[in-house]
Amino acid sequence: MKLKPVSGRRSIHLDDSDAHVHCSLTEDDLQRETKKYTDRISALQHVLYADARYALLIVLQGRDASGKDGTIRKVFSAVNPQGCNVASFKAPTELEQHHDFLWRIHQQVPHLGMIGIFNRSHYEDILVPRVHGSVPKKVWTARYAHITAFEAMLAANNVVILKFLLHISRDEQKRRLADRLTDREKNWKFRKEDLDDRELWGEYTRAYRGILANTHTGNAPWYIVPADDKDVRNLLIARTIAERLAGLRLRYPPVDPWVAGMKIK
Amino acid sequence: MKLKPVSGRRSIHLDDSDAHVHCSLTEDDLQRETKKYTDRISALQHVLYADARYALLIVLQGRDASGKDGTIRKVFSAVNPQGCNVASFKAPTELEQHHDFLWRIHQQVPHLGMIGIFNRSHYEDILVPRVHGSVPKKVWTARYAHITAFEAMLAANNVVILKFLLHISRDEQKRRLADRLTDREKNWKFRKEDLDDRELWGEYTRAYRGILANTHTGNAPWYIVPADDKDVRNLLIARTIAERLAGLRLRYPPVDPWVAGMKIK
Repeated sequence: MKLKPVSGRRSIHLDDSDAHVHCSLTEDDLQRETKKYTDRISALQHVLYADARYALLIVLQGRDASGKDGTIRKVFSAVNPQGCNVASFKAPTELEQHHDFLWRIHQQVPHLGMIGIFNRSHYEDILVPRVHGSVPKKVWTARYAHITAFEAMLAANNVVILKFLLHISRDEQKRRLADRLTDREKNWKFRKEDLDDRELWGEYTRAYRGILANTHTGNAPWYIVPADDKDVRNLLIARTIAERLAGLRLRYPPVDPWVAGMKIK
Repeated sequence: MKLKPVSGRRSIHLDDSDAHVHCSLTEDDLQRETKKYTDRISALQHVLYADARYALLIVLQGRDASGKDGTIRKVFSAVNPQGCNVASFKAPTELEQHHDFLWRIHQQVPHLGMIGIFNRSHYEDILVPRVHGSVPKKVWTARYAHITAFEAMLAANNVVILKFLLHISRDEQKRRLADRLTDREKNWKFRKEDLDDRELWGEYTRAYRGILANTHTGNAPWYIVPADDKDVRNLLIARTIAERLAGLRLRYPPVDPWVAGMKIK
């Protein structure tokens, strides 16, 4: 079971049925498989850090309760926190609103050797204005090109970008939001605004389709993750990341001959 | 086996013999015990994040090769990277030198709900000037009071501070630096400057004694960690952190009654 990047507008539906994938593995099998890849990510991260030729940037997008937090907790459970930085982008502050929309994003881009995870991202600056009409259409449509240019510049600086849209169905979201109402340990995650966005389900779907169609590039591909099943979601994302890292052929930096011959007193 | 905070100047020796502690546990036992505490830290972190009344700030100091990186990797191996931020303080940049020494430190203080780890810290701004004579004595001695005032202010804002000095012996440092010369996977960590600092062993010892004697406070205690044995080090630190977190009586925020009664369409 493997994720493929988005391939042309035809592959972008985001129907409820796309949120689920048939899988014959048991829960235990899924978790065992996932652990294989998360361990692999942890091992490769160590070399990524030492190598310092590349950075890895993971962009997580998805509706409320689509599992962004859970993905970070599970897929990056074995990662050394020293080599990994998570940036959560909330509604922009007044200061951030007085800058261009990429200003706060740019500051959080991982430096070479690091893994950076964006929990929400610059894509919110297309989604929210489009769905809520808070910014003129010509402004948010221009952001497609601003974003692809920005991401191309990062890629040219060896920032490897993987973008995941966690796609859940309307029913699954309902179950998860209801959990937040009843589960003592999840109450704190409930936000009234999540319900307002749920009312705008179709508008968000259209906005996501526009994003996928306009900002999927070779250097910064989008993956649609069927995310109704959390174990499937974790496996698919962990595998995609582990295989991308493995493809970089990371290595410990070559020895300085001067160093090799030293004596320590 | 349990760490005690520094208690008065008499307890501060930092002799080579203090870098080792007698321990009857096997390596396996030590690692099993440590896992118990790191799992506990991971579970408590989840509540710390939800609770958002406290932040935890871990300060790691120690000579080169004393195990600061390894401590982060092992003790925080189970921590959710979304709730944990590591700040590594290198030699200050030109911009940072044009600010007071706490300016760059302050920016990295964890916000409520977060764990922040300082890999080196503001204490370098006493150590390095004192040992290398790069700043007048009256400037670096004044920093004791600047630091205790700063830490008291953080503590008053519910930042829980634990400061660990990883204490290794001169022989153990020699072994570890030699490893960096010969081990292909460790070469990249070798810095020629580490040897210069090794020459100044006694000066650093005196500087650390001064720091411990002058900046150990009830709200920001120092722990001297016998760090020649990595497994012992990990267990001692993990236990101290787990027990401090447990003592906070963290809780999921109480339910808003308005939320409890909602229906989701």
